[in-house]
Amino acid sequence: MPEVSNRGNIMPASPIRRLVPLANEAIKRGVKVYRLNIGQPDIPTPPKAIDALKHIDREVLEYSPSEGLLSLREKLKEYYHRFNIEVDVNDIIVTTGGSEAVLFAFMACLDPGDEIIVPEPAYANYMAFAISAGAKIVTIPASIDNSFALPPVEEFEKLITPRTKGILICNPNNPTGYLYTMKEMLQIRDLVKRHNLFLFSDEVYREFCYTGAPYISAFHLPDIEEQVVLIDSVSKRYNECGIRVGALITKHKGLKTNVMKFCQARLSPPLIGQLIAEASIDTPADYMLETYNEYLERRNFLIDALNKIPGVYSPIPMGAFYTVAHLPVDDADKFCQWCLREFDYQGQTIFMAPASGFYSKPELGRQQVRLAYVLKKEELSKAMTVLAKALEAYPGREM
Amino acid sequence: MPEVSNRGNIMPASPIRRLVPLANEAIKRGVKVYRLNIGQPDIPTPPKAIDALKHIDREVLEYSPSEGLLSLREKLKEYYHRFNIEVDVNDIIVTTGGSEAVLFAFMACLDPGDEIIVPEPAYANYMAFAISAGAKIVTIPASIDNSFALPPVEEFEKLITPRTKGILICNPNNPTGYLYTMKEMLQIRDLVKRHNLFLFSDEVYREFCYTGAPYISAFHLPDIEEQVVLIDSVSKRYNECGIRVGALITKHKGLKTNVMKFCQARLSPPLIGQLIAEASIDTPADYMLETYNEYLERRNFLIDALNKIPGVYSPIPMGAFYTVAHLPVDDADKFCQWCLREFDYQGQTIFMAPASGFYSKPELGRQQVRLAYVLKKEELSKAMTVLAKALEAYPGREM
Repeated sequence: MPEVSNRGNIMPASPIRRLVPLANEAIKRGVKVYRLNIGQPDIPTPPKAIDALKHIDREVLEYSPSEGLLSLREKLKEYYHRFNIEVDVNDIIVTTGGSEAVLFAFMACLDPGDEIIVPEPAYANYMAFAISAGAKIVTIPASIDNSFALPPVEEFEKLITPRTKGILICNPNNPTGYLYTMKEMLQIRDLVKRHNLFLFSDEVYREFCYTGAPYISAFHLPDIEEQVVLIDSVSKRYNECGIRVGALITKHKGLKTNVMKFCQARLSPPLIGQLIAEASIDTPADYMLETYNEYLERRNFLIDALNKIPGVYSPIPMGAFYTVAHLPVDDADKFCQWCLREFDYQGQTIFMAPASGFYSKPELGRQQVRLAYVLKKEELSKAMTVLAKALEAYPGREM
Repeated sequence: MPEVSNRGNIMPASPIRRLVPLANEAIKRGVKVYRLNIGQPDIPTPPKAIDALKHIDREVLEYSPSEGLLSLREKLKEYYHRFNIEVDVNDIIVTTGGSEAVLFAFMACLDPGDEIIVPEPAYANYMAFAISAGAKIVTIPASIDNSFALPPVEEFEKLITPRTKGILICNPNNPTGYLYTMKEMLQIRDLVKRHNLFLFSDEVYREFCYTGAPYISAFHLPDIEEQVVLIDSVSKRYNECGIRVGALITKHKGLKTNVMKFCQARLSPPLIGQLIAEASIDTPADYMLETYNEYLERRNFLIDALNKIPGVYSPIPMGAFYTVAHLPVDDADKFCQWCLREFDYQGQTIFMAPASGFYSKPELGRQQVRLAYVLKKEELSKAMTVLAKALEAYPGREM
């Protein structure tokens, strides 16, 4: 039998994915499983979007342009303008989800052996896309002790080599919920400018900033406009993860030309998703506000509940809908497995994402889990009771 | 400004794409342009599919499983069974169009520097996906003089090196319309078996075989089951290119595991496209037959009309909805440009794809164009009149 590629072999399988069969078995045993493991919001897609779907009236479901429908790109331009991100329609390339935007950004910017620096914990799939491009992700650990703030600039400087091509940030952050301050963003900006790097900025959670602190887009930073590669997606902000519509935004001409070659090779992003995304951008403010308030309330509840459990610590996330919490356990991977495989409290258990999957060195996340607050408050409340009981019963509890 | 990747730089821009602005300008001048350049069928999507779209009744447009909806994979299994392709539901991985299936196949099978052998002319985007994977496409020219039949096996043997990992075929073929015979398929099978290679087989046009000769799937070949990587797509058979649903089918366990890592990284294929694709598989036989008869009639008309034009020669394509024809011109790239830029006959002109884009050595296609018969017969008829007139008027006509 012919051998598969090494590239596929070295790609780490996600620790969350490995737990899915355990969760399914628990459900089969009749156990209620609270799923805090993934960013699949439970909030309904906006009625405007569902309505657009129901009213699609086309005879031929044909290819759309490789760069995406002009009408969608025009709407996106208006949308970004609301956030003081001033881009031209031609700076916006529609992709099949934010995932494809990351892949194409890496493919078009990085050659095999090139490096990008990423603060960790970080969204696990960045690693997969870097491996796809043959590029190397170099990580700098952020610490839970200061809420996963940006690591000191000197740490970045130490890691810069002739192969460094970019810095990657996610802001507000998945998995930590951290929102970079103006001071931090300016530090990143200086670094990027000084070393002539790309700044890959994944800002898909921009609608969800809870503290009154401003959301600073990479495009707000002075004098590095052409170095910024913005990654966006409609998935999370309109609760329509399944339509697979994202965007890559750049003002770098050569990059645009090259990204378009990758876009043309895959012919077009999904037509129907684009029609839905376009309608979604007109979602009334009250839907957006309701969603926002719902997450805010859940966040406040969840973080409070977590920090009340003896030995548990979670910083207060400033954005997105995740938090990374410290648990008093020997190994969060084992604990998450144990919760699904061996534990239940009154017929209920909890599914969390071990944080090891968000670190290049899994031991850094050995006592941490990521929780997504994508369940209603009543369910979160029950889940927190279950977590407290699980920590009491877990044989590997840290003394 | 940071530099883009070399990978993007070396990716050839398609000669068809370069002609699009010229076509748009012609339209602006009021010229009617007959578009035979791309495989965007004009035939309506099946009513069953449109109906399924209109009846989607979901509150949350959520992620589907990374491997695709189970219900769709079950339908696909039944569908393949109709063609005597016996695969298990778990052998089928749903992708975002056939394009992603090719990309993931290359990513999961080929490491940088690995080689695959492809008869040419070949679908131009294979090259882009190979470049994405850092792999090398090695080509063997097929000849218009014997209808683009499989080149002699000895030619393949000559090109095999320690880095050769696979053979790639498209059957029925885009761009030539050639359908490989049992004898040829067995030759390929022996080659693949002898050298322990993957056989990447793109069979998206299987519904369109016109001569009574059997369609031989790579999965029909004895004893290489685990070496076959089948590429499929619903785009062309149900005229729904825009929904972006395809599939990668393999019985190779290690390959399945690795392809799934790429699938998980991009989270999920488009949900709504999958729901439409699922309904499409139940399209009544009369729709499929009508589509088939329509293409058959167009093919017969087009090939006949082409061969009546002095100096033009087209083999009779046995499948798909393309043909590659020889034109009596100095340079088909120039001729196609000239048709759009400088010529019209009674306010009409023709948009064809120069064949150079389907060859690794463009000079091999210097006098050839690809025509897609995706227009109604009346339009094809007018287009052929225009082509005849254009060839009479073209200053670079071959003497």
